[in-house]
Amino acid sequence: MQRITVESSQFCDRTLTLNRQQLHYLMRVLRLQGGDRFVAMDGSGSCWETELVEGEEGPYGRVVLALDFNRELPISLTLLAGLPKGQGFDEVVRQTTELGVTRVIPVLSDRTLLKPSPNKLQRWQRIATEAAEQSERQWVPMVERPMSLAEAIAAVSPARRYFCVARGDRPHLLRQVRQDVASWGPEMAEMAIAIGPEGGWTTAEVEVAIASGWQGVSLGQRILRAVTAPTVALALVAAALESGLD
Amino acid sequence: MQRITVESSQFCDRTLTLNRQQLHYLMRVLRLQGGDRFVAMDGSGSCWETELVEGEEGPYGRVVLALDFNRELPISLTLLAGLPKGQGFDEVVRQTTELGVTRVIPVLSDRTLLKPSPNKLQRWQRIATEAAEQSERQWVPMVERPMSLAEAIAAVSPARRYFCVARGDRPHLLRQVRQDVASWGPEMAEMAIAIGPEGGWTTAEVEVAIASGWQGVSLGQRILRAVTAPTVALALVAAALESGLD
Repeated sequence: MQRITVESSQFCDRTLTLNRQQLHYLMRVLRLQGGDRFVAMDGSGSCWETELVEGEEGPYGRVVLALDFNRELPISLTLLAGLPKGQGFDEVVRQTTELGVTRVIPVLSDRTLLKPSPNKLQRWQRIATEAAEQSERQWVPMVERPMSLAEAIAAVSPARRYFCVARGDRPHLLRQVRQDVASWGPEMAEMAIAIGPEGGWTTAEVEVAIASGWQGVSLGQRILRAVTAPTVALALVAAALESGLD
Repeated sequence: MQRITVESSQFCDRTLTLNRQQLHYLMRVLRLQGGDRFVAMDGSGSCWETELVEGEEGPYGRVVLALDFNRELPISLTLLAGLPKGQGFDEVVRQTTELGVTRVIPVLSDRTLLKPSPNKLQRWQRIATEAAEQSERQWVPMVERPMSLAEAIAAVSPARRYFCVARGDRPHLLRQVRQDVASWGPEMAEMAIAIGPEGGWTTAEVEVAIASGWQGVSLGQRILRAVTAPTVALALVAAALESGLD
């Protein structure tokens, strides 16, 4: 069933008022008609199966049933990612949303080449919304404004924070997360992961992070692009949390 | 150090004859000069640190030392991937090369929308070569011609073959690979993974694969795009092989 994201304020009892853009998408793009059903999600954990009704005063949605399924990770997961060049961050937002990220902080690191234009943030948030719909999530991740690594480090507080370093002899992220999940169990409610930009974090950045309580980890033997590394990290964390510990 | 892929036949003793394209890349694009060094890899497991020499009869390479490092996975890994729409397969080849794939077979599944044009294969092989250089691998993966799922199933023989299915209650790929690695140990030399196209494999395709000895597996709770799923699968297998079993 097709999915759209709506605001909670659009619901009144079991009626969902649809705005012009949503009606266009449902009726023109998806070609739904009165009686057809779609999933309306509020982006904060709730979804409803909804029927399109062609009322006398125009089309609206009628909630048929609250959907009770969960594709979310069992923890809240913040990603700090160095801004790669070009359109690379679009793909980072899209893929990590598919993999369950909760919050994305674009980081202007020492090796970041370009400052993003202000409308980028809007674009990334739109990509996150679309990707959350496509991957059938209940939550739409929040994309924060770009900030320096120092600011980003100050903005996240989880007890478990992993700082991915491309070269050197750090423990593997998968091994580290599995160990931490085993020892923390359900008490682990939040996690943060940081991935460098093209060329990796500078030595100074790694030192600052480690001194701030981040655990240095590796994503494996090969050198990954800045676009690929966040996807790999999220895939490993999601699998460590969802695949069980045997 | 910058890397280029060369043919084994270009070496004679410690001299590397460079063709016009390679010389252009080294001297015009990378702006190397006589005395500068680069890494020449033959794409089949060997790498040499090489010095550019501006000889009387033109520039050539002189092998300084054979490089003995290994970023390759401990097994040979074949990926069968349903062709996604648009340019999506470029990204599949690029990211799975970064993650250590050995061989890529594009699959024309029941849900594949387009037949690729003949020059696509050449393009994908070029992307694999570039990605292998960037991720500092010793092997360049082989991209095969697109084939049907039945042909692809007949073309791969590893004892461990995983067929990723988007919905349903299959064991998680990470859990399955870890179990298999634990029970097979170093006897596991080859592995194959199959990932569906947009919309997933059809029920008939899943049944054929299972009947042919493939193990049905899941990549987690969320619905992944056809471009993201191969990266996730490769990330999990690489991590299961490289992170140790504790």
